[in-house]
Amino acid sequence: MRSGRRSGGWARANRPVPAAALAEVLRVTDGFDLAGVDPADTPGFAGGRRDAEQSFAEDGALLSTLQERLWAGGVAGSRRSLLLLVQGMNTAGKGRVLRDVAAAVDPRGLRVASFAAPTAKERTHEFLWRVRRCLPGPGELAVFARSHYEDVLVARVHHLVPRATWQRRYTAINRFESSLVLQETVVVKIMLHLSAGEQSTRLAWRLQHPDLRWRYDPRDVEERAWWNDYQEAYQAALTRCSTEAAPWYVVPADRAWYARWAVRRLLVGELTAMGLEPVPTHVDVQAEVARLTQG
Amino acid sequence: MRSGRRSGGWARANRPVPAAALAEVLRVTDGFDLAGVDPADTPGFAGGRRDAEQSFAEDGALLSTLQERLWAGGVAGSRRSLLLLVQGMNTAGKGRVLRDVAAAVDPRGLRVASFAAPTAKERTHEFLWRVRRCLPGPGELAVFARSHYEDVLVARVHHLVPRATWQRRYTAINRFESSLVLQETVVVKIMLHLSAGEQSTRLAWRLQHPDLRWRYDPRDVEERAWWNDYQEAYQAALTRCSTEAAPWYVVPADRAWYARWAVRRLLVGELTAMGLEPVPTHVDVQAEVARLTQG
Repeated sequence: MRSGRRSGGWARANRPVPAAALAEVLRVTDGFDLAGVDPADTPGFAGGRRDAEQSFAEDGALLSTLQERLWAGGVAGSRRSLLLLVQGMNTAGKGRVLRDVAAAVDPRGLRVASFAAPTAKERTHEFLWRVRRCLPGPGELAVFARSHYEDVLVARVHHLVPRATWQRRYTAINRFESSLVLQETVVVKIMLHLSAGEQSTRLAWRLQHPDLRWRYDPRDVEERAWWNDYQEAYQAALTRCSTEAAPWYVVPADRAWYARWAVRRLLVGELTAMGLEPVPTHVDVQAEVARLTQG
Repeated sequence: MRSGRRSGGWARANRPVPAAALAEVLRVTDGFDLAGVDPADTPGFAGGRRDAEQSFAEDGALLSTLQERLWAGGVAGSRRSLLLLVQGMNTAGKGRVLRDVAAAVDPRGLRVASFAAPTAKERTHEFLWRVRRCLPGPGELAVFARSHYEDVLVARVHHLVPRATWQRRYTAINRFESSLVLQETVVVKIMLHLSAGEQSTRLAWRLQHPDLRWRYDPRDVEERAWWNDYQEAYQAALTRCSTEAAPWYVVPADRAWYARWAVRRLLVGELTAMGLEPVPTHVDVQAEVARLTQG
């Protein structure tokens, strides 16, 4: 009774904001200040966890339909595709986003990539090389956990390359993303914004569960010493690379249920804005049904 | 109340058969006769649709845990992997299996492949070439919709190659699969067994729904004229290639809820039989938690 009543009431009186309005609230625009965003906040959402879960499930059905249209379009010759790129501190929920997308779409039209520290071979190439190899093909939806932004985040924080090198990369990234958009790839960039306190809780959780322990790396704790440097590097990446063609969205991530809801809603919003329709076919439906009935 | 009571009662009084027993019931063994399998049957399952859905959801959580162990093992250096291969007539539910697996696992450890009619390039190679390129890597779970069996199914039915050629392939397939198993890949082969009547219903459903119509191909109706030839080709493939190393399972598929339940349960059973454990780490949990609390 409880969930039915509350959700029903909420659904009528307290609809979640439309995807376009959510995007407006979360988009990085002039004067953005990451330090001013509370990771525990739930912007654009008035209900509680249970309401978010219901809305999340409803958006899952929408995502499924829209992704099939995107994919069917690709099969029919369209070049359109979508790249969802997720950044965030360790345990922010990047892997969860991969799973949430995969749970709702046809895996034949999905491409996931996870970018760890570059291999020796990857390091011999320019920084965008490995990313280019994982871009979505026609009709595909690609999801990146980490991305070329690592090359202006960890590379900047730990001085992996000279200052002049990472400085140049912001412009290189903007041109790269702008070229993708011109080639009919919608680029959606989301930062999952986590607090240091919540990260500590999540790392401890991993440690305490035998099935999650393999994901724990003692270096994750050492990285916490650079927390403020990372926030600065994020602030720079977010403000220098939030463009008209490929804006950044910052999603507070301390409440996993909110972050999962918001990411899916942003994704559904982008797919909706693409104006995808069922792919038209030239089949004579009545004649075919008749053939089937005879067969 | 209804679902709660019924499911609860069923869960106690009427547990679904253990995966090993289900495998026993569905495995293709000496004297197997496909014509004797009723596509509308639900072997190994006594409850109704709602019970199956509950059991399916429970098995999803198990599948998630086991796949993470498989994948974590691969990251830690294990060579073990699993290949789930699904065959069946058009609309039998092969795509649904891909989605059901993808919905429950981490997409970073999943590989899906769908084998349509071979391209010009693929035809220049021997028939196993394109399949070898999609095999699971260490720790991966791969799911194939169609596979090298098309080369003894459609190729046999439509005389795409001389009789001597497809005759040789049964042995080639057995040796190929046996080599995979020796290389620590568990091979699970499932045929979704559909009736011609249910196929007709499903094709009509696709025709009548604008968002599914793109999946409808008028040639699908023409293929129905070869229904019996396909059943014969399946009978031969199932009996000649159900080996100790890589047995075939036939899952009646007219009731989609049963087929989805049975496929997931077989998969969970195979992963369980692999004896996967959480990957051990050498982290001092108490010391790390203390470090986290200080940090």
